[in-house]
Amino acid sequence: MRAALFQGPELSSDVAANLAALAAAARTAAASGASILVCPEMAATGYNIGPLIAERAEPADGPIAARVTEIARESGITVVYGYPESDGGVVYNSVQVVDSSGTSVANYRKTHLFGELDRTHFTAGDELVVQFDHDGIRCGILICYDVEFPEAVRAHADRGTQWLIVPTGLMSPYEFIAETVVPTRAYESQLFVTYVNRCGTEAVLDYCGSSCAIAPDGTELARSGRHEELAIVDLDVADLHRSRRENTHLDDRRLDLYPFLQEKTS
Amino acid sequence: MRAALFQGPELSSDVAANLAALAAAARTAAASGASILVCPEMAATGYNIGPLIAERAEPADGPIAARVTEIARESGITVVYGYPESDGGVVYNSVQVVDSSGTSVANYRKTHLFGELDRTHFTAGDELVVQFDHDGIRCGILICYDVEFPEAVRAHADRGTQWLIVPTGLMSPYEFIAETVVPTRAYESQLFVTYVNRCGTEAVLDYCGSSCAIAPDGTELARSGRHEELAIVDLDVADLHRSRRENTHLDDRRLDLYPFLQEKTS
Repeated sequence: MRAALFQGPELSSDVAANLAALAAAARTAAASGASILVCPEMAATGYNIGPLIAERAEPADGPIAARVTEIARESGITVVYGYPESDGGVVYNSVQVVDSSGTSVANYRKTHLFGELDRTHFTAGDELVVQFDHDGIRCGILICYDVEFPEAVRAHADRGTQWLIVPTGLMSPYEFIAETVVPTRAYESQLFVTYVNRCGTEAVLDYCGSSCAIAPDGTELARSGRHEELAIVDLDVADLHRSRRENTHLDDRRLDLYPFLQEKTS
Repeated sequence: MRAALFQGPELSSDVAANLAALAAAARTAAASGASILVCPEMAATGYNIGPLIAERAEPADGPIAARVTEIARESGITVVYGYPESDGGVVYNSVQVVDSSGTSVANYRKTHLFGELDRTHFTAGDELVVQFDHDGIRCGILICYDVEFPEAVRAHADRGTQWLIVPTGLMSPYEFIAETVVPTRAYESQLFVTYVNRCGTEAVLDYCGSSCAIAPDGTELARSGRHEELAIVDLDVADLHRSRRENTHLDDRRLDLYPFLQEKTS
């Protein structure tokens, strides 16, 4: 299975420009043989845009979704994109997955909100594990800060996620997350992780790029620089099975000793 | 608080030679102003030594402990050392802490056994969080493979550990653990971690060194090479408090969503 990781668009002044960049990336990805395109957190609208978040928020079947559906159909690949989702009078920091038939196959709402940037604009989601199947791989979604919590990734591993897709909006000076924490997550919970970041600047934020794909054995399969980039990566589930045979962390947990279980069973 | 991390002895053919090397390290550490010396997993006896493990195993107050007590008193510093502990007819992979008055202030038995190397020779401990206080810092102990499990480090953070001391016996090609996983543990659970490895070779094992001290914000305070080395590092609890104010991961967990709690409350 070949995936395309779109670290962009670098300039995201308006929704139409963002969607045009996304469409171009989808065409290039498809031409490269990829069957899925992963875009960053809030790729459709911009992220650190203040009250524009609320203005640009839409239901999961809104006009942005309609345009992404066209892009997915036209390019013939699945598209994973971040957007502000309005529902029931509140706004979520969401990622939706639209397959090449134009069907929404997953919609995840960020469960771990990051600092004032998120808390000012978003309500936290309450469903931790959202999955979909793609080309024989069980995929799961987390967004940015979510993946810094090992519990969230464990939950995915335990529910069968083989490829964890993480659109993000990571800024300097937090390069440590992309370079160190994300590879650890892949290894400790034995799954593929792709972390797809924004780049460029938005107001005071300087996104640090460094999007990556990490194999379950910790191998770095792809690593982007700081600027707009489309990375192509091949993920092979056989590598996951091989790594899990060699790295038996999931089986070696001492569930009998961990505090959550102790507190609830004592 | 100044600590000394002893990546050694590189050659560990017999217990007397190991203890002599440990005594020399303790003298040098004390002369450098350190108040505590941390030695690797099974530093007193050797690790990959087959049936010699059982032969050299002793109770927590055995002859090795007596010699370490002398070393701690003579050098005037606390000594943390790994040894095979016999108790009730079984052998544990243990780490004991003897303070400068010669008192044993902690004894931890490895809870996560690694592969055949551990499972052939050791019984797993059943107490996950073992702590002691040193110079105003709450210290906790894990051993090697234990620290690869984020749950174990979380348990320490939740019980108040500020400095996690991890004697280890990490071999090539697992450098990823020392370089990537260990720094992640410090950051994600917001505590100091010192990972003190063996070096040199034992039978087929080539220990990879790379002992390190990592601050709660992920900063690498010390990093050893592949050979015998005594690293001196200063840990300041003020840095921990500052990091925890900036990196609020412990407070930002979604305990309401994590599977253990869900399974037990549903």
